[in-house]
Amino acid sequence: MKRVNVGVIGFGTIGAGVVKILLKKRTLLKKRTGIDICLKKICDRDFSKDRGIGKVPQNLQEKDWRKVVNAPDIDIVVELVGGIGIAKDIVLSALKNNKIVVTANKALLSEYARDIFSIGTPETNLFFEAAICGAIPVVKDIQEALVANRIKSLYGIVNGTCNYILSKMFEDTLEFEVVLKQAQKLGYAEKQPGLDIDGIDSAHKLSLLSLLAFGKYVPPETIPTEGITNLELMDLLFADEMGYSIKLLAVGNDTKQGLDLRVHPALVPYEHMLSSVEGVFNALYLQTDEAGDMMFYGRGAGRFPTASAVVSDVVDAARVIVSPDVPSARQEIEFSPRLSEVSCRYYVRFTVVDRPGVLAKISGILGKNNISIASVQQTERAKAGSNTVPLILITHEAAEKKMKKAISEIARLDVVKKEPVVIRIVDL
Amino acid sequence: MKRVNVGVIGFGTIGAGVVKILLKKRTLLKKRTGIDICLKKICDRDFSKDRGIGKVPQNLQEKDWRKVVNAPDIDIVVELVGGIGIAKDIVLSALKNNKIVVTANKALLSEYARDIFSIGTPETNLFFEAAICGAIPVVKDIQEALVANRIKSLYGIVNGTCNYILSKMFEDTLEFEVVLKQAQKLGYAEKQPGLDIDGIDSAHKLSLLSLLAFGKYVPPETIPTEGITNLELMDLLFADEMGYSIKLLAVGNDTKQGLDLRVHPALVPYEHMLSSVEGVFNALYLQTDEAGDMMFYGRGAGRFPTASAVVSDVVDAARVIVSPDVPSARQEIEFSPRLSEVSCRYYVRFTVVDRPGVLAKISGILGKNNISIASVQQTERAKAGSNTVPLILITHEAAEKKMKKAISEIARLDVVKKEPVVIRIVDL
Repeated sequence: MKRVNVGVIGFGTIGAGVVKILLKKRTLLKKRTGIDICLKKICDRDFSKDRGIGKVPQNLQEKDWRKVVNAPDIDIVVELVGGIGIAKDIVLSALKNNKIVVTANKALLSEYARDIFSIGTPETNLFFEAAICGAIPVVKDIQEALVANRIKSLYGIVNGTCNYILSKMFEDTLEFEVVLKQAQKLGYAEKQPGLDIDGIDSAHKLSLLSLLAFGKYVPPETIPTEGITNLELMDLLFADEMGYSIKLLAVGNDTKQGLDLRVHPALVPYEHMLSSVEGVFNALYLQTDEAGDMMFYGRGAGRFPTASAVVSDVVDAARVIVSPDVPSARQEIEFSPRLSEVSCRYYVRFTVVDRPGVLAKISGILGKNNISIASVQQTERAKAGSNTVPLILITHEAAEKKMKKAISEIARLDVVKKEPVVIRIVDL
Repeated sequence: MKRVNVGVIGFGTIGAGVVKILLKKRTLLKKRTGIDICLKKICDRDFSKDRGIGKVPQNLQEKDWRKVVNAPDIDIVVELVGGIGIAKDIVLSALKNNKIVVTANKALLSEYARDIFSIGTPETNLFFEAAICGAIPVVKDIQEALVANRIKSLYGIVNGTCNYILSKMFEDTLEFEVVLKQAQKLGYAEKQPGLDIDGIDSAHKLSLLSLLAFGKYVPPETIPTEGITNLELMDLLFADEMGYSIKLLAVGNDTKQGLDLRVHPALVPYEHMLSSVEGVFNALYLQTDEAGDMMFYGRGAGRFPTASAVVSDVVDAARVIVSPDVPSARQEIEFSPRLSEVSCRYYVRFTVVDRPGVLAKISGILGKNNISIASVQQTERAKAGSNTVPLILITHEAAEKKMKKAISEIARLDVVKKEPVVIRIVDL
């Protein structure tokens, strides 16, 4: 039986999960694949911390990542250090040394796509299933199962932290800040939660999804990105009354006019599958030309779900190694600018002074900007001692630029007391 | 560039879809895979019928399947004849001639697993993604993405016809027979619908799923199978009031006591993702040891969704051909008997005479059989001129054998006027 040797760099939560599976399931993997996948080295600066997987044999431990990357008998380098510092050196050095690289590092891949994808090619020497949606095989399914398809649109719930917070706010009728604190205590949110709740992590993943699904690369920092920090409980409750849940979506549309990529909270109709994705779960909804609509759902984070995806990549990499004739031609990746003009329906919540004539002023500005109103809801939910009330508008389809202009004009009215909350309605 | 030659046998709905994709997307597939996948022959007895994909070049047409299976320059044989007659000869002859076989034929594979899987091996020379859940990559995801996992349980909505009928009954408040006739008119149900509505097609798929997910083969005819023909609209309405939808499920549990496989209608709680699967869509929900819970959702039938899966198999087969070093060791398939004793909660609807003392009689029999009642509902829904009313019971967890015994005893009471409707509650 052929043997393939693996070096795992980074012995944190995910790294320890991968190590545990590779050690525990070596025989099972042999039986299932016909290849002996052998864990040769585990690299970390510190092995004293208990990783909850028992003792790691001394002879597997290595403190210098360069030794792993340069070892002639290591075939596959698994990078699980994270971040965009040393991880970049590890991935690039390993690829240059003709190792196959497996990584879960979405920040690195999406921000340094030009450097990395010029020498690393999915399905050949760079595997990153765990970088997007954890255990869910979105990379494999887009590349292999949907190989005969043009993907027209994708809608992803790709950040478990945000989805947990939004689910919990609604379920327990709690405000954002309260749930965020709970989530931090439970380990579902980082102490510095910006990467998640500001939508940046979702933009990283969307950049990679665009590359896979549309063959087009858009740097994550150029993707219009909104987080969930200005959502209030009442938005979830109003949306619920109207038959919607609110989700942080990563949206991609490959249109004739160009590529439309964006990350933002969205009202998703209850009839749609995506609105049932609760808690820390992730999902990717795809619209394709041959296969029709599809959805893939599962755990987007966590030690073993993520490690499960890493190990499936290691197995695919091992198959490439034992059969080096696999053709390496891959779809060329276009580096693509994105579409600037998109339109949709909007949910807007204004906090206004409870006085006649306010609606007339607001609707006047909207009308001037060619935005027409589909419905208005003015429910008395003002707290005692306050003279403001929420005013909810649903618009008909409106262009993004016009909407932004109208909203900033309305926000300057003296009867409008807080920054308006604007949420796109995603009509699926 | 390496070229791989394909022969498609069976030029019906799916066959014509595969032919169209292979011809239209040859260049795209070249770009994506680095292999030239060349359609060499299309085989059918009759090419005069318009298949809605335009003219097929004369030189591709072949009427004798043996010529395709024996052609030295054909690498991949795609069997889309269907049924278990000639299709069996085609698949076995092609495998014996060292062709790689791609098929969508669940009846053939599940009923003749012993003959076929003794020479055909998934991932090596026998591909059948399209046989289960159409476009949804359940075979690939179980075998490859979840390679590091033990699958504990699976719950599948694997028959689009049944799911369409149940969805439509509830949505339009119509009885089974009415919706079945509509579905037949729309082409969603066959004129002889037994294979679908009696659950047989689901049992075929479950037999294959068991083989993939648990590595254990159970002949489909030994899987306890119930269809949807005795469900009435009121069952869907009662279930709805209690917070459930009713779905025809294919259930598999790999327990320490043995394998539990079954096909039957089930109450699925609204909070669960599977209850959102509507219309002709299919879904497979998996519980795994490392990756946690997952669900795959999409079109389970139809020309292009099914053809999309067939073409993805053709591409995987082509990769095996151009790199013949892919290891052929696969997990051994166990031929397995199934677990006979399972228990669950039950929904039971009795049609009883509207008279005091009826509930006492029924609950007496249940109690004698150690089945305890969780709730009772006796809503007045009897039609005018009838002296019977529906009596709905929800039981606590009860063993299947005891339940059957109790129900047959109750059915013989003179106050019970119709065969009781018994539906399992699947607590996910």
